Amino acid sequence: MTESIRIIVPFLGLFGLACAWFIYTRIRRLPAGEGEISDIADQIHNGAMVFMKREFKILLVFAALVGAILWFKDHFESMAFFLGAASSGVAGFIGMYSATKANVRTTIAAYNKGAQEALRTAFFGGTIMGLTVASMGLIGVGGLFVFFGDSEHDIHIIHGFAMGASLVAIFFRVGGGIFTKAADVGADLVGKLESGIPEDDPRNPGVIADNVGDNVGDVAGMGSDLFESYCNAQIASMAIAATMTSGMVSEIAESSYSLMFLPLALTSSGLICSLLGMIVVRVAANMEPAKALRSGTISATVIFIIVAYFVMQALGVSNMVWMCVLAGSFGGTIIGLATEYYTGGQPMRDIAKSSQTGVATVMISGLATGMQSVVVPVLTVAGILMLTSTLAGLYGVGIAAVGMLSTIGITMSIDAYGPIADNAGGIAEMAGLGKRTRDITDSLDEVGNTTAAIGKGFAIGAAALASLAIIAAYVNVVRAKHEEFSLELSDPTVLTGVFIGGILPFLVSSITMNAVGSAAAEMIEEIRRQFREIPGLLDGNAKPDSARCIDIATEAAIRKMFLPAAIAVLSPVVVGLTFGPATLGGMLVGALLGCVLMALLMANAGGAWDNAKKYIEQGHFGGKNSPSHRACVVGDTVGDPLKDTSGPSMNILINVMAIVALVIAPLL
Amino acid sequence: MTESIRIIVPFLGLFGLACAWFIYTRIRRLPAGEGEISDIADQIHNGAMVFMKREFKILLVFAALVGAILWFKDHFESMAFFLGAASSGVAGFIGMYSATKANVRTTIAAYNKGAQEALRTAFFGGTIMGLTVASMGLIGVGGLFVFFGDSEHDIHIIHGFAMGASLVAIFFRVGGGIFTKAADVGADLVGKLESGIPEDDPRNPGVIADNVGDNVGDVAGMGSDLFESYCNAQIASMAIAATMTSGMVSEIAESSYSLMFLPLALTSSGLICSLLGMIVVRVAANMEPAKALRSGTISATVIFIIVAYFVMQALGVSNMVWMCVLAGSFGGTIIGLATEYYTGGQPMRDIAKSSQTGVATVMISGLATGMQSVVVPVLTVAGILMLTSTLAGLYGVGIAAVGMLSTIGITMSIDAYGPIADNAGGIAEMAGLGKRTRDITDSLDEVGNTTAAIGKGFAIGAAALASLAIIAAYVNVVRAKHEEFSLELSDPTVLTGVFIGGILPFLVSSITMNAVGSAAAEMIEEIRRQFREIPGLLDGNAKPDSARCIDIATEAAIRKMFLPAAIAVLSPVVVGLTFGPATLGGMLVGALLGCVLMALLMANAGGAWDNAKKYIEQGHFGGKNSPSHRACVVGDTVGDPLKDTSGPSMNILINVMAIVALVIAPLL
Repeated sequence: MTESIRIIVPFLGLFGLACAWFIYTRIRRLPAGEGEISDIADQIHNGAMVFMKREFKILLVFAALVGAILWFKDHFESMAFFLGAASSGVAGFIGMYSATKANVRTTIAAYNKGAQEALRTAFFGGTIMGLTVASMGLIGVGGLFVFFGDSEHDIHIIHGFAMGASLVAIFFRVGGGIFTKAADVGADLVGKLESGIPEDDPRNPGVIADNVGDNVGDVAGMGSDLFESYCNAQIASMAIAATMTSGMVSEIAESSYSLMFLPLALTSSGLICSLLGMIVVRVAANMEPAKALRSGTISATVIFIIVAYFVMQALGVSNMVWMCVLAGSFGGTIIGLATEYYTGGQPMRDIAKSSQTGVATVMISGLATGMQSVVVPVLTVAGILMLTSTLAGLYGVGIAAVGMLSTIGITMSIDAYGPIADNAGGIAEMAGLGKRTRDITDSLDEVGNTTAAIGKGFAIGAAALASLAIIAAYVNVVRAKHEEFSLELSDPTVLTGVFIGGILPFLVSSITMNAVGSAAAEMIEEIRRQFREIPGLLDGNAKPDSARCIDIATEAAIRKMFLPAAIAVLSPVVVGLTFGPATLGGMLVGALLGCVLMALLMANAGGAWDNAKKYIEQGHFGGKNSPSHRACVVGDTVGDPLKDTSGPSMNILINVMAIVALVIAPLL
Repeated sequence: MTESIRIIVPFLGLFGLACAWFIYTRIRRLPAGEGEISDIADQIHNGAMVFMKREFKILLVFAALVGAILWFKDHFESMAFFLGAASSGVAGFIGMYSATKANVRTTIAAYNKGAQEALRTAFFGGTIMGLTVASMGLIGVGGLFVFFGDSEHDIHIIHGFAMGASLVAIFFRVGGGIFTKAADVGADLVGKLESGIPEDDPRNPGVIADNVGDNVGDVAGMGSDLFESYCNAQIASMAIAATMTSGMVSEIAESSYSLMFLPLALTSSGLICSLLGMIVVRVAANMEPAKALRSGTISATVIFIIVAYFVMQALGVSNMVWMCVLAGSFGGTIIGLATEYYTGGQPMRDIAKSSQTGVATVMISGLATGMQSVVVPVLTVAGILMLTSTLAGLYGVGIAAVGMLSTIGITMSIDAYGPIADNAGGIAEMAGLGKRTRDITDSLDEVGNTTAAIGKGFAIGAAALASLAIIAAYVNVVRAKHEEFSLELSDPTVLTGVFIGGILPFLVSSITMNAVGSAAAEMIEEIRRQFREIPGLLDGNAKPDSARCIDIATEAAIRKMFLPAAIAVLSPVVVGLTFGPATLGGMLVGALLGCVLMALLMANAGGAWDNAKKYIEQGHFGGKNSPSHRACVVGDTVGDPLKDTSGPSMNILINVMAIVALVIAPLL
């Protein structure tokens, strides 16, 4: 029965794409403003497209290179690699294309019709990304499974897909992260601090680039990040299932095939549950924005957990495995709540309070908060690991990750909602649509900030579990070749790998932080030049050359994303070929630990600084423009590259390294 | 032959103490100033003693508790524990007592006789600490070896000594670190920024506490830190030797006994070489201070390496083991040079340059520098691990650590020289001895800052290798009981431990940073109160109540050091008893990785910020009181708790956890 049913998966993916297309046509039909408004929106849209085009060009070269090398290993695996890269690229392109159409329509909806309609527009603008990401995964992984899922020996071909997705992700995440923060920091430092003009002021030449950056970083970057974890979790679970002994299989399922197919069955169900969740949001749009979005996610998750139970019954898989799904979903929620607490609760207010004694104490308390914030999420990941591996071995760990990511359709929609709402506010400000409109977009944006913080925590947790599963698959693949292979920690070969791995997150973070710094410096120079050389710019009598700023950010991002990408792809190859599979295995674990810790530290410190600034702007500790506020603005500026560039790169770094290791494992 | 020769070791220790006593009497005879000068010096000395006394009291309770529990495991081990704690305590007390006598004599020497005599006084003031640390180690470890070195079954008794030393170290390092930075940050924020009076101004009520803090943190804290690594490295090597099979022994030595005795033979030679190095410094004191100190260390190290060769020949130990000593010494030098580069080279100047665009860029570039600075030292540790374990198994790793630490007599002397020179400058300033004296002490202090940075890098490297050796010993001890015991990384039980271990450095750093923050806030309140309530204080017509400030810092340090100490001691016990030895082993490795990375990040970012500020004060980028300078002052303030409180705690955290694990290993 199950062998023939698998053909449904890619078709379900096509159905998901059709839904996305349907939503897109509906959004396109909404009024998009005219005159200045539509002009601003076009600039943002075109800027994003310029960046995409340039990024795709460099990506093509890099992918061709890697794919060609892979060709010598296995033709099919190489083709799967290109398919993975293309899927991620297409998802990112579609998502960003629609987000930059939905942003201005959200502004107009807020202006013409009010909060409820604006929320719907922004959210459904985001669902196009959510649905595309989920669907491309089903089409790609599901399609490959149709062709190569019968034989446990062919399953490695699908690894190529994961590697393609990972490669695109590191370019999108790192490149997008550098772009967005270079533009943001540059525009803020000159605009707010030097020229004394407010945020999103149309006179500032960097403002359009800043808005482009939100799409490039938070839509395309985040999407490729989650897409990668989503595919990796499924593919790793399949790989673990393929290498399990029949004794191990019989403990938790009727057949090895059931276990290999289960991840796809879960993500397929997850897509349908996400669609149901979207309907809930639509119906609930008259509630507070935060509540509306939350009820969508919660109902999708609850339905998914119930459906998963019956899916497993149908596939003859043990309840133990279902409990792994439960653990993944539950763990994801805990991590999200912990993130919310540290970036929005008492620790954030303590940072705001510390601003009364100046910048130094803001920095110290923010760093301390970031460090403390790793405890609960990492313990949660460790708990999931312990529990699920007891329930169903390492396969259970993979399924927990799959469970956490199955409802990606709706979680990614909410992630993409954030930058759309943010953009909508920016457009309202630049076009001078007045306080009422701005208040609506601000309330949507505020919710977006919270969802972004939670989404980041969730992405880190998911990436950690996904790479744990890939590392487990790596060990199994190596062990299939060398029976005595072990990652014994007291073996100096392994321990050396752990040390090398631990360095990499620090090195990559340092590189990306410096990249933002130097790109922002170029941006600052250019903005200063325009204020100096374009007559009448500050008085509003002349237009800034926004395109030039977009160009600079694009140029810098493309130039600087190369080194981190090369480190991620090459370090497993170099270490594996030089020191062997044991050192490589140790390196993956060291890198995983370092990446998770640094990702949480940076995301949460940055998020807490950001919110502390906003908390003060609400009137606490002296309010806007007080010395406390100025201290917190510095905190926010420092946090920007941490939370939006270096931190998010960590997820991809470990996933890329792990998947490269898995692909080269048979050669070691 | 060798069995009877071991009695020499503790006597050599007594000889070292005699040398220290001799130097102390010579220093006491130097002029100590009179009137105001001697009054200031007495305040510092008495403040340090007050802190010590209070710290000893709380330590006594904690040690009695731990010792009592240990009593049930093994009476002798419990006694060894008390001996270890007492040795570290005595070393710290003697070192701090003499440092607070040498500081004022250095000031007077600079005032009366000039740079050469001042350098000698400061350096020989430091040698008392250096010699005491080395000697107490020989007396303690050597003495226990005389009694328990014959049987491989009794050798575990000596572990108690290491645990005692570690327990004292965590109290001294954490408590001292909180004291010194609470006082420093408090005095600076109110004095320099609010009241506009210069550093070390006698009107500032926090200045005496600040000077006390230098002794408490950098003399006693650093001393207990190195003492612990020094003893741990020796004891771990013995433990590894004791559990080696005769086959493994025969590959590198004539007998297992030779291998057990070798660490003591090396440290004994190291003491003599350190004494020779001190003579070199004395003779070279007419050179530049930096050169004089360096020639002392280099000659001690070179002589030691040569002597070590002959020691091994005499003990019938293979040349392979000698090469491990070489690797340790060479590696230590590389780590020191890397530290010097990041805190004093181009990266530091880049931070200074980034101050032109404000505080935010100073913070970002400093953090990025700290992150990047982990690469070379960690690769060096990994390289030493790989090389020495190939040469002589895990025993080689232990011996590399012993080799690195054998010349502790002179390296610790130079570490203690720093705060003495710093204090001398403070006293000169407070007593108003004029620019000429201040210039001399400043030049000595500057060298002290560089040596402190290098010393910190060295301490981290040594601690990392020492705990690697203890972890190896732990694995061997557990394996002696459970033959099939393994730390297989793909085993979720082990991996969970790695995650838990990785959290701890972040948690402890966060706690200690917050401790400094809140203690500094109390200090600030008190200093503000005194300026407000003591009439005539700011005009110099009234004396500040310095004792009250010392009291506050003491109180805060003692209160706040409890939690980190409890985490360090209890986490291995709780994890070991709950999840078993495999999870505990994983935890140690995760904690080791995290501690080393965070220690380097914090020490080097802090050091680089500190020096960037000084670089600007030399006239670059606008010089003193420019906006650039103000930005760097913030960087320095943020770096203070990182480099002097949280960072150094990392070394001890991992060592305490590892030694506790080793001690409880037979019970698991």
